[in-house]
Amino acid sequence: MAHITLPTDEPGIVGLMRYRPETAAPLNALAEVLLRSDNTLSRGERELIATYVSSLNDCHFCASSHAAFAAAQLPAGMPLVNAVRLDPDGADVTPKMRALLGIAAAVQQGGLKVTDQEIGAARAAGATDVEIHDTVLIAAAFCMFNRYVDGLGTWAPEDPAAYEQTASRIVSHGYGSSLNDEPESHS
Amino acid sequence: MAHITLPTDEPGIVGLMRYRPETAAPLNALAEVLLRSDNTLSRGERELIATYVSSLNDCHFCASSHAAFAAAQLPAGMPLVNAVRLDPDGADVTPKMRALLGIAAAVQQGGLKVTDQEIGAARAAGATDVEIHDTVLIAAAFCMFNRYVDGLGTWAPEDPAAYEQTASRIVSHGYGSSLNDEPESHS
Repeated sequence: MAHITLPTDEPGIVGLMRYRPETAAPLNALAEVLLRSDNTLSRGERELIATYVSSLNDCHFCASSHAAFAAAQLPAGMPLVNAVRLDPDGADVTPKMRALLGIAAAVQQGGLKVTDQEIGAARAAGATDVEIHDTVLIAAAFCMFNRYVDGLGTWAPEDPAAYEQTASRIVSHGYGSSLNDEPESHS
Repeated sequence: MAHITLPTDEPGIVGLMRYRPETAAPLNALAEVLLRSDNTLSRGERELIATYVSSLNDCHFCASSHAAFAAAQLPAGMPLVNAVRLDPDGADVTPKMRALLGIAAAVQQGGLKVTDQEIGAARAAGATDVEIHDTVLIAAAFCMFNRYVDGLGTWAPEDPAAYEQTASRIVSHGYGSSLNDEPESHS
């Protein structure tokens, strides 16, 4: 049970955004720009960074959600997502993505943990300044989203189908689309 | 020197926001709602939570900035801000603020670190659901801002006067006001 009384029984960040639309608006706008706006990193690649950081933070709701969103937008689907969550160094991603995932892991530990060497490795693998910027901010943002969702004690569905259903809505309509609908019942 | 090439020599998050206005907009909107919109926690109290979390994350730029913003908006000024940064349990704050600072410290460690006991203590000291919600989200947001600023290797002024100057602008005009001006020179 969440630490505060929410207006619906929707899980994870959805119930929190329903509770406090004033903060939901900039949070959804941030996710939309970082994960879905035009970028040389694909939407699937950016969701993969979000998933990996959420896994490192042990946030079940965010990791399951963004794993589904990544799988829906990557040609290699959920097997690749699971491989990255387990061991990004052994996963079949490009050298550039591997270097960016390394930077994301450092950011998850703390901003001061990012080294010149990690930045140099990403650049040597072809990462641009914007890609490095966005990787750091995606990783940092999920250190926020994960703490928000778990710090308020929200619940997370166990059934993967629940996340796949949300994935098809996010992929088609973007972040913030859930708040335009009537609350979904999970009772 | 920052890990990426920024368009100006402005310090901390200012140079990053100048570099990527697409992400600056929702980040400033989030700070504005959390730290300055109508709330039963005063602006000074909310800046104190931001300062404390930034100190725990060793983020020199954010801790110095928000310390100046808190001091400018709290009757007890910088001595109280410094006392909270050093030891919130010994600082002269209300029992409610002490409990909320305890929740913020748990969130800084990780969302799953927040205990029912800490939430109960805050509630017993008079904290409302919205105050608990906003404390968790302020703490989580500063785990993002701190990682963003340090993960990209930005610089931070040593001179406290630089932060006091920014404080008077933020207090009068709010977050986002710096991006309406011509870049300031720090050379």
